[in-house]
Amino acid sequence: MNVTIDLSVVPIGVGVSLSEYVAACERVLTEAGLSHTLHAFGTNIEGEWDEVFAAVKRCHEVVHQLGAPRVHSTLRVGTRTDRPQTLHDKVKSVQERLVTNRR
Amino acid sequence: MNVTIDLSVVPIGVGVSLSEYVAACERVLTEAGLSHTLHAFGTNIEGEWDEVFAAVKRCHEVVHQLGAPRVHSTLRVGTRTDRPQTLHDKVKSVQERLVTNRR
Amino acid sequence: MNVTIDLSVVPIGVGVSLSEYVAACERVLTEAGLSHTLHAFGTNIEGEWDEVFAAVKRCHEVVHQLGAPRVHSTLRVGTRTDRPQTLHDKVKSVQERLVTNRR
Amino acid sequence: MNVTIDLSVVPIGVGVSLSEYVAACERVLTEAGLSHTLHAFGTNIEGEWDEVFAAVKRCHEVVHQLGAPRVHSTLRVGTRTDRPQTLHDKVKSVQERLVTNRR
Repeated sequence: MNVTIDLSVVPIGVGVSLSEYVAACERVLTEAGLSHTLHAFGTNIEGEWDEVFAAVKRCHEVVHQLGAPRVHSTLRVGTRTDRPQTLHDKVKSVQERLVTNRR
Repeated sequence: MNVTIDLSVVPIGVGVSLSEYVAACERVLTEAGLSHTLHAFGTNIEGEWDEVFAAVKRCHEVVHQLGAPRVHSTLRVGTRTDRPQTLHDKVKSVQERLVTNRR
Repeated sequence: MNVTIDLSVVPIGVGVSLSEYVAACERVLTEAGLSHTLHAFGTNIEGEWDEVFAAVKRCHEVVHQLGAPRVHSTLRVGTRTDRPQTLHDKVKSVQERLVTNRR
Repeated sequence: MNVTIDLSVVPIGVGVSLSEYVAACERVLTEAGLSHTLHAFGTNIEGEWDEVFAAVKRCHEVVHQLGAPRVHSTLRVGTRTDRPQTLHDKVKSVQERLVTNRR
């Protein structure tokens, strides 16, 4: 089962600067070979369910290893059985609507 | 690694009544032997990381089997390495503050 | 427009114990006269849109006043135009499904 | 108080194709003059608290007007009092970490 997710990782108990921890999680995703796109509030990820969630677990582990005693993450998770849909497809379908309706 | 999560499952493409699908997911959690508590916007779940996320995957599968072509879920996920904390502990620590500060 | 929301407030930069801040937010909701129910990962709230979101803003302000330099909150927000639905209705409709299907 | 949010709007009861509704919400944000960036699971928005949340309310209203009997949205909301931080700053601080650590 393929899945697209949006992952936001918030380390707690390490002060206010969180970018080091988010960057560590980005490297986990890259090493896992998962297609992913960073945005200002999280990262869009796509892939096979078990691989994607193994990477989410690894993110929590790595952020703890960097010194965070608590990790709070939030995820949006999408699966569909009617047709395949990539992260790129999702953005494109909205952008096409915006162009069409502007005419 | 233990984890506490808050899971909200929204089937898409099956009309406006979603309770049948949420109930199916509740049964998945019960069958998995996971401690869980339903609230109006989701379900709090606690347990070992792999067992909890196997149940989340099973929820998506079951909701698709019931006829939903798309499933959109949102999760809050908490892990901590400083000390164990159950779902009950989390609620209790806030409630104790409310009582203390009222005095 | 009525709304039901699920609010989770995470103060950042104040260490690992967050219950004091969550309790302060609970008091904001009580003072606002909003129906609300605490769970292990947040608080379900219902009411008129503007009153509910004024309370969410007040929660952020109060948590900052208590010393948190950053506040990260997550919300699930539900509105419906087909029929009114309270927080209680939402839980009850799932629980009834669980009982019915058990027979 | 300035705020950065990440908004994902899911109309319920209108079938599986949601892009028309998401595009309508994008137009609300543009008309409100709010800086915003679409990604595959939502939209990052920044601005003054009251203006941003007025636009979120307007999104719910517009999606209902387009025919959705239920609207379920999820938000991540960030405020900070220590220093200003734009959406662009948030992405940049992570990207700089990624470059630095690669050396």
